[in-house]
Amino acid sequence: MDRKQQLIFGSAYYEEYLPYDRLEQDMQMMVDAGFNTIRIAESTWSTEEPRPGEYDFSRVDRVIDAAQRYGLNVIVGTPTYAIPHWLAKLDPDALAVTAAGRNKYGPRQNMDISNPTYRYYAEGIIKALVKHTCERPNVIGFQIDNETKHYGTAGPKMLILFQRWMKERFGTIEKVNDLFGLRYWSNSVTCFEDLPDPTGAVNASYALEFAKFQRILAEDFLLWQSDIVKKYKRDDQFITQNFDYEWILFPDGSQGGYSGGIQPDICHYKSARAMTLIGTDIYFFDQDRLTGREIAFGGDLMRPLRYDNYLVLESQAQAFKEWLPYPGQLTLMAMSHLASGACGVMYWHWHSIHNGPESYWKGILSHDFAPNPTYDEIRRIGQELKQLAPKLAGLKKDNRIAIVVNTESINALKWFPTDGGLSYNDVLHWVYDALYNLNIECDIIFSQQQDWSRYDVLIFPQLYCAHSTVVPRIRAFLERGGTVFATFRSFFADKHARIFPDCQPHGLTDCFGMTYNQFTKPVDVTVDGVPAEHWMELLKPDIAEVKAKYNHRYWGEYAALTRNTFGKGHAWYLGTMVPTEKLQEYLLEMLEDAGIQPETSLRWPLILRSGVSREGRKIRFLLNYSQEDQTVASPWDCIDLRTGRHYRVGDALSLGDWGAAILEEDTP
Amino acid sequence: MDRKQQLIFGSAYYEEYLPYDRLEQDMQMMVDAGFNTIRIAESTWSTEEPRPGEYDFSRVDRVIDAAQRYGLNVIVGTPTYAIPHWLAKLDPDALAVTAAGRNKYGPRQNMDISNPTYRYYAEGIIKALVKHTCERPNVIGFQIDNETKHYGTAGPKMLILFQRWMKERFGTIEKVNDLFGLRYWSNSVTCFEDLPDPTGAVNASYALEFAKFQRILAEDFLLWQSDIVKKYKRDDQFITQNFDYEWILFPDGSQGGYSGGIQPDICHYKSARAMTLIGTDIYFFDQDRLTGREIAFGGDLMRPLRYDNYLVLESQAQAFKEWLPYPGQLTLMAMSHLASGACGVMYWHWHSIHNGPESYWKGILSHDFAPNPTYDEIRRIGQELKQLAPKLAGLKKDNRIAIVVNTESINALKWFPTDGGLSYNDVLHWVYDALYNLNIECDIIFSQQQDWSRYDVLIFPQLYCAHSTVVPRIRAFLERGGTVFATFRSFFADKHARIFPDCQPHGLTDCFGMTYNQFTKPVDVTVDGVPAEHWMELLKPDIAEVKAKYNHRYWGEYAALTRNTFGKGHAWYLGTMVPTEKLQEYLLEMLEDAGIQPETSLRWPLILRSGVSREGRKIRFLLNYSQEDQTVASPWDCIDLRTGRHYRVGDALSLGDWGAAILEEDTP
Amino acid sequence: MDRKQQLIFGSAYYEEYLPYDRLEQDMQMMVDAGFNTIRIAESTWSTEEPRPGEYDFSRVDRVIDAAQRYGLNVIVGTPTYAIPHWLAKLDPDALAVTAAGRNKYGPRQNMDISNPTYRYYAEGIIKALVKHTCERPNVIGFQIDNETKHYGTAGPKMLILFQRWMKERFGTIEKVNDLFGLRYWSNSVTCFEDLPDPTGAVNASYALEFAKFQRILAEDFLLWQSDIVKKYKRDDQFITQNFDYEWILFPDGSQGGYSGGIQPDICHYKSARAMTLIGTDIYFFDQDRLTGREIAFGGDLMRPLRYDNYLVLESQAQAFKEWLPYPGQLTLMAMSHLASGACGVMYWHWHSIHNGPESYWKGILSHDFAPNPTYDEIRRIGQELKQLAPKLAGLKKDNRIAIVVNTESINALKWFPTDGGLSYNDVLHWVYDALYNLNIECDIIFSQQQDWSRYDVLIFPQLYCAHSTVVPRIRAFLERGGTVFATFRSFFADKHARIFPDCQPHGLTDCFGMTYNQFTKPVDVTVDGVPAEHWMELLKPDIAEVKAKYNHRYWGEYAALTRNTFGKGHAWYLGTMVPTEKLQEYLLEMLEDAGIQPETSLRWPLILRSGVSREGRKIRFLLNYSQEDQTVASPWDCIDLRTGRHYRVGDALSLGDWGAAILEEDTP
Repeated sequence: MDRKQQLIFGSAYYEEYLPYDRLEQDMQMMVDAGFNTIRIAESTWSTEEPRPGEYDFSRVDRVIDAAQRYGLNVIVGTPTYAIPHWLAKLDPDALAVTAAGRNKYGPRQNMDISNPTYRYYAEGIIKALVKHTCERPNVIGFQIDNETKHYGTAGPKMLILFQRWMKERFGTIEKVNDLFGLRYWSNSVTCFEDLPDPTGAVNASYALEFAKFQRILAEDFLLWQSDIVKKYKRDDQFITQNFDYEWILFPDGSQGGYSGGIQPDICHYKSARAMTLIGTDIYFFDQDRLTGREIAFGGDLMRPLRYDNYLVLESQAQAFKEWLPYPGQLTLMAMSHLASGACGVMYWHWHSIHNGPESYWKGILSHDFAPNPTYDEIRRIGQELKQLAPKLAGLKKDNRIAIVVNTESINALKWFPTDGGLSYNDVLHWVYDALYNLNIECDIIFSQQQDWSRYDVLIFPQLYCAHSTVVPRIRAFLERGGTVFATFRSFFADKHARIFPDCQPHGLTDCFGMTYNQFTKPVDVTVDGVPAEHWMELLKPDIAEVKAKYNHRYWGEYAALTRNTFGKGHAWYLGTMVPTEKLQEYLLEMLEDAGIQPETSLRWPLILRSGVSREGRKIRFLLNYSQEDQTVASPWDCIDLRTGRHYRVGDALSLGDWGAAILEEDTP
Repeated sequence: MDRKQQLIFGSAYYEEYLPYDRLEQDMQMMVDAGFNTIRIAESTWSTEEPRPGEYDFSRVDRVIDAAQRYGLNVIVGTPTYAIPHWLAKLDPDALAVTAAGRNKYGPRQNMDISNPTYRYYAEGIIKALVKHTCERPNVIGFQIDNETKHYGTAGPKMLILFQRWMKERFGTIEKVNDLFGLRYWSNSVTCFEDLPDPTGAVNASYALEFAKFQRILAEDFLLWQSDIVKKYKRDDQFITQNFDYEWILFPDGSQGGYSGGIQPDICHYKSARAMTLIGTDIYFFDQDRLTGREIAFGGDLMRPLRYDNYLVLESQAQAFKEWLPYPGQLTLMAMSHLASGACGVMYWHWHSIHNGPESYWKGILSHDFAPNPTYDEIRRIGQELKQLAPKLAGLKKDNRIAIVVNTESINALKWFPTDGGLSYNDVLHWVYDALYNLNIECDIIFSQQQDWSRYDVLIFPQLYCAHSTVVPRIRAFLERGGTVFATFRSFFADKHARIFPDCQPHGLTDCFGMTYNQFTKPVDVTVDGVPAEHWMELLKPDIAEVKAKYNHRYWGEYAALTRNTFGKGHAWYLGTMVPTEKLQEYLLEMLEDAGIQPETSLRWPLILRSGVSREGRKIRFLLNYSQEDQTVASPWDCIDLRTGRHYRVGDALSLGDWGAAILEEDTP
Repeated sequence: MDRKQQLIFGSAYYEEYLPYDRLEQDMQMMVDAGFNTIRIAESTWSTEEPRPGEYDFSRVDRVIDAAQRYGLNVIVGTPTYAIPHWLAKLDPDALAVTAAGRNKYGPRQNMDISNPTYRYYAEGIIKALVKHTCERPNVIGFQIDNETKHYGTAGPKMLILFQRWMKERFGTIEKVNDLFGLRYWSNSVTCFEDLPDPTGAVNASYALEFAKFQRILAEDFLLWQSDIVKKYKRDDQFITQNFDYEWILFPDGSQGGYSGGIQPDICHYKSARAMTLIGTDIYFFDQDRLTGREIAFGGDLMRPLRYDNYLVLESQAQAFKEWLPYPGQLTLMAMSHLASGACGVMYWHWHSIHNGPESYWKGILSHDFAPNPTYDEIRRIGQELKQLAPKLAGLKKDNRIAIVVNTESINALKWFPTDGGLSYNDVLHWVYDALYNLNIECDIIFSQQQDWSRYDVLIFPQLYCAHSTVVPRIRAFLERGGTVFATFRSFFADKHARIFPDCQPHGLTDCFGMTYNQFTKPVDVTVDGVPAEHWMELLKPDIAEVKAKYNHRYWGEYAALTRNTFGKGHAWYLGTMVPTEKLQEYLLEMLEDAGIQPETSLRWPLILRSGVSREGRKIRFLLNYSQEDQTVASPWDCIDLRTGRHYRVGDALSLGDWGAAILEEDTP
């Protein structure tokens, strides 16, 4: 398929899980819904290899055959994230030992991905499946594994691998004792073989190093799968993976959770190397709580991994009962994915499961397979995307602002959380959401990424662990005129989460023009009339300008927000957490230093995203994340690609509840 | 004893646990309290068999002897629910392995009831005890075990038994893979010996099948005990068991819990076969929170197991500190048990324990053995029951309304709970309580029970799992003129909790005249001016009459309550949860279809229960579940059997706080 | 050092944990801060003995050398509370098995202190370290271990030791079956070797006896360490230990906890024998929640162990972020420790740790080692204490009131908690705080302590377990004219937590002139216009005077507070919990019976503590535990030792926020 002309549209399809044969009916309903692609097989190992080495791809073949007949493309997933019971029986060590003990058989993602038996049979099924399917004309790509992470594998054999890895990296054990502070509470050792089981560790640096080793294992596992697939696949077939996010359980105890921020258990930046097409799944509250922020966040994180379009491999149809979308919401979601640079939208999944752990994570079809309002709306989206594809496929963005993150920081702050259970991702989203509310687009990039030259503004929310190159690169960025905005707890520790023994913020006191060495929990403290919460650093400005102070009997002498001129640039530092609205004010003021201001006065719930089409036209998405009708005076001369209606500047532009307009700029 | 003339009255008595010898004093105090029966021995295995095979029944003998002298009958309990330590030492596997690992020695009910060593010694002590005591004239019956359940036994040997059982039932493994949806996440297997340990299962249907196997084990265990006892006991001696209920922990964190609904871990319907006299224990909040609902519920569940009187083997005396009864409450409770059809009331237990896990679950006597207000009130009850027995023994009921339940549904909904932690029993009690508040008596029956001919109305609260015969029987019931009332989530899955792949409600869309295939969580939704909560099905009436709709911007087009005429009958369906008061309105309207209305306008806290005495007279219990005095105009010509006072219709009939009247209908 | 002329002032110092060599700088900063003492080495075993039997005290030497040069004394701690990994590897049993399973390596205090391998190597390092350092002139004492407790050790070998210990104590197994009520639920056995693993016990008495065995193990362990040290140390060197308290987690979920009451896992009274100088650490909320109560409580518990001054080995500097002290609070804390009879104040710890579990338990210095407000205030305190030492060193108290506690009661009430999670220590603090608020000083003593002759008033808050001698001693105390005040749940059970089978309060019904045998949870009950909460005993006065009754429809006939004259004394009994203000009223009224009244009308937040200096002068500490300035009319002719200012009776005496005055009585 020509991804320059087409948008991928479809769903996961598991013929294996059907209660009766209805393949032809399903295919017809998919075609009616404007589908062009299905994703299959990624969790069906026991069906494909019922006994060790005995392959049976008949069900895969049936589905590819039928898809071919109905004109549907297929993404074939390797089934390695759910092992057959015979594998666990053959080698009990195939089930991972985690900090909680030996996993039981039953769930997916329970295996030790370092286990040789697992790797042996995984290699077998990957090879066999890819060889079996790669010549099929409608197979357009492969998904390797699914939502890959390290799954906490931490058994005795992992310890040995870890000890060897540590030896390779650090050479002498004294270096390890020093670097990780192992002398504390008598944890120092005299040889690498004596390094203790990290699952008992109370030393955060040591435990975090093991977590890094676990992540590298997961990253290597994906590269290993990718290499196997590459040996067999056709050149025109892509390799993708389904990146997920930190899964946050619903605070109100409802079933399931949502894509709540960057993933702690694998580094997306490093594992992107294993893919030729970035894939992801994004889930979130909808109904009254639909905000679009997770869609935008996911896109702004995925897109810069390659600075290219990415595929939404899974998105919600009916999903949990709490998520049954209101009329129009599915359309709004689909348009929002495209607005963020997705090259396609696939749903999880076609039909609801009749027994299993995910029976109440409903698909497009309910358990009765009959059309329903969800199917009907997806059908309308499918028809519309066929029309829009030539305009929207290959949309590009060029953002000047980046939020800088890393996986070390999210993990380190799980050990040393900010007050009130405020996680790394909470603070990241606090910053992200402020920009989102202001309709200021940004990229989310990893601190290891070397090239910051495309950006004018870098924002560091709680970048607790500063890799050794980050500080000099920030200095250089400021010197050449960049604008930096950092929050509390940034640059506090090195990449091993060892707290820096010099003045805070480490290596940047002259850049920020201030320092601090005490912090406390804010109780009845205000800043600019709003409450300071969760954390407060007692900033002592040297040359920095004080933009805000704490209001408190004893802490009133300290600064909360500072701004400093360094080189040709400006460095802002915020020592506490303020309400989002106040943060928006601060960010707007900071952006002035970079000469950036929002394109319009539109604010959330009216969301504006834009890009440049392959034809070089500016495309704007105007998205109404509310149940109120909205009318604005058009700031542009444009045409709504969905309705064909033209607008001149100042014309009334109306959006119904949860409505979306796609506005192509008029060429004069 | 002649249970046609006498009501059993007494308590459990554990001479073994006394801190000093006071047998004679206790007996005298019991006789003074009007006791005629004690229950002994049911947890004292280590005393009766201090070493393997060495029996010592001297303490049992002492107590039976003394009871004989004082004119007290004895129920002898087999001690099998608390194993001696030597048994756990002899065979470590006697302690069950559950999903949480191997049980430790210490608590009761920690054993694996499938363990052969346990069974061998259990058989020994049962035989020896029954042989030793069955000839004693004052031994009137035996209790087999106590509050029997499967206790979660799930070790490696249970797995083998389960695999064999599955093979016997299903024959081929493909049938199992299909039926239980094992292909999901690669859980399918190729032979029965490969079926995985269900304690790790994420497949609800598979895990629930194992739970059923566990329940059958418990049911078979009771039958096995019953068969042993039957070999030795006299014909006039009964066999009973102490059925308990789902034990719900107090929501406010207080010590203990209460009898909160049907029991998930054994099926009372199936295990009733092991008994000649149904026995039960019922516990609940009292003081300001005494409502009588658990007493009524327990009776309405126990009585239909045999359509006969049942014995309350345990009820609360002082119990937890939170439960110390107000003056009059013990009397009200005793009368309420009789009002539900109990043939006797026994307390747990005689004296408070001086050290042990249940020291603060106090008996009739406090730790000082002195008379106290609790003893004094029980003494008055005992004297009164002697007088009332000829009138009240053998009371019968003939209810036209049944609530239909099954054990599969309660377990399935633990996997797929309704929103907000609302359990099966919560919904069951919601429906039951509505009837109770209206003073409409009902039976609670199991869906497997074949004979529905005695009922005019069947109510199905969340009957999630519909056995294959249920649907055709409902159709037939409606056709012959019955009235059916079903709530949300009924008939959704088969007995294996596999969701039906056809239209909902499965097999009954024409009966209910509506269908639905989407449901959501109600947020800010009202129905008839009251909030809809926890669950809402988007009902699409076909031929049904819409009795209520949802009030909501997006869901307003769907029905919440429907009524349909089918055959000669009427079928009601309620798709959401409304406050109890509103449910009462709906039920009253529904009952009109069956020509039923409450006998009086009395409502909770004034409770009216009635039955027919052996003499054929209508007996009404009027119970005041409040601390307010209550006066009503008597709707009947009657005599209060407690006071001897006669009432004519319209006479002022007064009840003090927590008062009870027993009104025999005047024969004209 | 002459502890009659000097106050110990300093901190823990861990050169081993420094990220770079800064020994000289640290020493200089300490000297500048007025330090005279540092504590070293108590958790650095792996540094001192990197391989079994290979000792390396070079870092200890370096620090002692430097300290010598800078005029600092050293307390050397044995490092036995944090084992090296090689020890866990050498003997896996060195890691304790607790009720939760085998400990992992990593944390401190994870070992089995009964393990022979642990004891062997512990003896080795203790001997080697003490021998190596005891001749150093500036080593003034040794700390044995740290915050020693039993750490829940409960493995199979502990069971064997326990069975033997039980045999030695009780002789016959029948006595054990009787005493501990083991027949309950078939737990009785026929030989000591069959006594079951107490970690599975549901019998509280049995489990509590094992807990006592565990405590004795910990107490013996300290004596054993002490004996080893005594063999080598100089006569002028002291032996101390760092007693801690029950560690209560912060109710709001903040990091860490606080010293919340007496320690359940070791008996301070018994283990005080192992020391020549009582040492302790005390931690608590500060900032807005600083009350001083934990400081006073700790002092009042430590001081009577020897009726001598004690050393505060650890107190908070910056600690948790929530605890960063307000200006002046560190000074107030230091003065308060001295006001309670401390002979010195040491901080934990010098510098914040750069990686490890306690990185955010900050020391005097932040991670940057730079001076900061905390260091600056400690420096001012150090200078001041040098001046004050001749006046304050050796301060004595002679309190007439004692609160009587025991460790059995705190543990027993964990099994049978008072309603609402109210712990033994909560009730203890409720009583203690009432006295503290009233500025009435008391001792806290253990019930085993035989000599009550120095007291006029004894208070028993929930003394649930009454040792056999307690009751006769109370009778004698009353007879000779003493005043007794007991709360609910006192004298209820024996020292084995076996509930007494006679009338309550056991053996004291004539002393109190009342009895009770029922109790309940108070719901909507008031006493003297305030709510009764958590527990209520239904007191039935015989000859006692009713001081207060319950106000409740059903419980109104019972007394809540009684007073009785017995012998020459008076016995008060309070059957429920009332707000602290009401308790204060009751206590004041009770104290009148003993002729005691508060010295002044000052109440918390103005705290008054006093003692007699070595010179025989009365010294009063006036402490302002609030952020309001306070001015009072001086009740005394005195001089403020801190300011040199003289006051005559009636002069205005002002204290700033968190201020402290030390007032020496003027001699006429």
